[in-house]
Amino acid sequence: MSLISPNAPTAELQALDAAHHMHPFTHGADLAQKGARVITRASGVWLTDSEGERILDGMAGLWCVNIGYGRKELAAAAARQMEELPYYNTFFQTTHVPAIQLSARLAELAPGDLNHVFYASSGSEANDTNIRLVRTYWAEKGQPERQTIISRWNGYHGSSLGSMSLGGMKGMHAQGGAVPGIHHIDQPHWWAEGGDMSPEEFGLERARQLEQAIEEIGPEKVGAFIAEPIQGAGGVIVPPATYWPEIQRIVKKYGILLIADEVICGFGRTGNWFGSQTMGITPDIMTIAKGLSSGYQPIGGSLLSDEVANVISGTEFNHGYTYSGHPVACAVALENLRILDEEGIVARVAQETGPYLREKWQALADHPLVGEAQIEGFMGSIALTPDKSARAAFASDAGTVGYICRERCFANNLVMRHVGDRMIISPPLVLSFDEIDTLIERAVKSLDECHARLKAEGLMVAASHG
Amino acid sequence: MSLISPNAPTAELQALDAAHHMHPFTHGADLAQKGARVITRASGVWLTDSEGERILDGMAGLWCVNIGYGRKELAAAAARQMEELPYYNTFFQTTHVPAIQLSARLAELAPGDLNHVFYASSGSEANDTNIRLVRTYWAEKGQPERQTIISRWNGYHGSSLGSMSLGGMKGMHAQGGAVPGIHHIDQPHWWAEGGDMSPEEFGLERARQLEQAIEEIGPEKVGAFIAEPIQGAGGVIVPPATYWPEIQRIVKKYGILLIADEVICGFGRTGNWFGSQTMGITPDIMTIAKGLSSGYQPIGGSLLSDEVANVISGTEFNHGYTYSGHPVACAVALENLRILDEEGIVARVAQETGPYLREKWQALADHPLVGEAQIEGFMGSIALTPDKSARAAFASDAGTVGYICRERCFANNLVMRHVGDRMIISPPLVLSFDEIDTLIERAVKSLDECHARLKAEGLMVAASHG
Repeated sequence: MSLISPNAPTAELQALDAAHHMHPFTHGADLAQKGARVITRASGVWLTDSEGERILDGMAGLWCVNIGYGRKELAAAAARQMEELPYYNTFFQTTHVPAIQLSARLAELAPGDLNHVFYASSGSEANDTNIRLVRTYWAEKGQPERQTIISRWNGYHGSSLGSMSLGGMKGMHAQGGAVPGIHHIDQPHWWAEGGDMSPEEFGLERARQLEQAIEEIGPEKVGAFIAEPIQGAGGVIVPPATYWPEIQRIVKKYGILLIADEVICGFGRTGNWFGSQTMGITPDIMTIAKGLSSGYQPIGGSLLSDEVANVISGTEFNHGYTYSGHPVACAVALENLRILDEEGIVARVAQETGPYLREKWQALADHPLVGEAQIEGFMGSIALTPDKSARAAFASDAGTVGYICRERCFANNLVMRHVGDRMIISPPLVLSFDEIDTLIERAVKSLDECHARLKAEGLMVAASHG
Repeated sequence: MSLISPNAPTAELQALDAAHHMHPFTHGADLAQKGARVITRASGVWLTDSEGERILDGMAGLWCVNIGYGRKELAAAAARQMEELPYYNTFFQTTHVPAIQLSARLAELAPGDLNHVFYASSGSEANDTNIRLVRTYWAEKGQPERQTIISRWNGYHGSSLGSMSLGGMKGMHAQGGAVPGIHHIDQPHWWAEGGDMSPEEFGLERARQLEQAIEEIGPEKVGAFIAEPIQGAGGVIVPPATYWPEIQRIVKKYGILLIADEVICGFGRTGNWFGSQTMGITPDIMTIAKGLSSGYQPIGGSLLSDEVANVISGTEFNHGYTYSGHPVACAVALENLRILDEEGIVARVAQETGPYLREKWQALADHPLVGEAQIEGFMGSIALTPDKSARAAFASDAGTVGYICRERCFANNLVMRHVGDRMIISPPLVLSFDEIDTLIERAVKSLDECHARLKAEGLMVAASHG
């Protein structure tokens, strides 16, 4: 067996990667030519690559490493559980202690009467579960025609066939075929789509699309509405303050289930344990993953209210995954939740580092390349624009300017992601005051470099007028 | 934070489990009343429950703990990787060493030119990936109308919306709605459905249903055929020898992709690394999970041929999971593959313990309650029947007699699963000769007890005539 040394030269690692490893959301042939950056180790908020570069991870991996890298307590929890009981299933009338412990702990942490957990290994799987839960719930309630689930364009709910259909990413729908029974309404993205309305007017207008959709489809055919409290992969879009109260009024009026996808917002990201608390939402089902284990283990799940769980428990629910409630993943998640709680990490985001980051982040709106700057807790976004007074978009292909800026960030050893021409951050919740300063410095440097290039190319409106 | 002690009384653990933990494929209210069996630790092929009972695990968890429980090397590999790099994603032009190493190793192990891996965290996710891969592949080849995938009734491919639709479990289709574009043909289950045909005739008849389906749908609209080399969750159904050669002829004739779902058959289960080798199949895509990590970590994936990978790499494939290629899961899988290989575990199933188990298992066919006994490597099944000469099924509701037998097994501290009135095993590959004897003794005892009860209730044809 020919094991590759982790200390092999970068070019050798890249060649093997190109030969055998297919990357998500990637043009494989292009990446093979360029060569992937090889991350070799990490500690706190810092990544190290195979060339020895230290990179500030402004995205917490993929919105998940809330606790930061390198926590030995989690490694110890994994090893301990793996030696004792590395796997057992929870099918066929059996259970195990880590699944029981984590379930009880999640019931304590979750708001309201979200007291019941159905496990999965990812947010994708959990949202697939939610589709089957909603439809089974209504069938058991004697309303099997309530099959339709309403969601939003530019929402993100995963990549399996069901969860990507819930999501509103048209490029994903085109590859594989979105499934029927899911209806999309527009997103509350004021900067890009608000036109002449005030944010408050626009928030109401977008929320009322839900009511219109329910009336068009027929209220007796709609089972649920699903949304992220704050859109994540769509570009960290914080909805206007009028949006969620109106949504909440509408789901109550029509008696449909409300699913809050907390995969990104959950476990401290917005300064509360859940984004639903920050945005004042009372969901019937919450999707959880990512921050649940800080990404140290693949685990996700659906948290259900007493009412939904009671109905589902009254029948045989023909659904589940081999790794539902995996004991090692549960044990690591428990240790992660213990540390997030006992070290006051969530509270610090709310009261100390969060407000500091907010101030620095919002000041980026003064940069000539930046339109709005939005931030809630430790998830933020800035809109790149050639003309901030007009809320204009760049005329070039969507994503080009964002990609240029993202490449400048990476060259400056900062991971910041772009979604079209929007730059986003979601750093580990342990980011310190000093590290916030570093993040902002590198972001400004990258923005400056990007701006200089755009000016040189005549792409800035202000510059071309100036 | 109120953590429950792992040494809490069973009743207390059961009460918390019932209050907060929703089990897969379970009638929750019924289980809450009965109380789940709490598995607390395991070693080799032996489980221990919260009452101190030692249970022989004839199912390797859920077809996955190929290497057996309690391997400290895997715990050490997990802890080592978790301390070094507990998570990083492989989106956005980055990679890491464990994903590279595992990809290269899988390319070595897999037959033919299946040299490329797209990772997931489960078989469900991987089969969802396969749906999107197949459709993207044909779109890139300029044949976007090739959307339909053909699969089989009573096949099992997972529980997400896409993968359960690929599967042919009607009770799952009824909850959540199977998606369009998937067409099912009948299974090669001679014992239950073969009628007056010989197994060889029946195998050809069932394979030719694929050709009929392709002609009915239109060959220009069919993208792929998916099947397990040996059906697992459907009841460990080994197809007649004529089946797979005819399938292979048909997929070649029409140029459609062949997907072998190796989630259960892979990684030594049938005495070869892959079930495709045992059954003489040449797939274009293989689904892998379970034995890949021996269940110690949630990981799965799709192995692609050079041709399929090259086509997919020529476009941006808008698909992937946060935990695709999770570094800890990859590191544990690598260590698992090392042990399976270096300790000759797969070879021993082929040459030593497998033949011994086969002999003992096939002798069960002499039991008055047992019709046929099928086994391939370390996966076996027996059909329970009231009248073996007539290949009769019990008249009572499907599954009742199997459930009685399964409950006798569990009372006798043997995990053996039932699928309807079929009993199945899939033990860890490290099961020793002595442990095989114990498994068979307990199986016979359970069959005897079940048989005595059925005779007493007048449900055995032979008994009622005798």
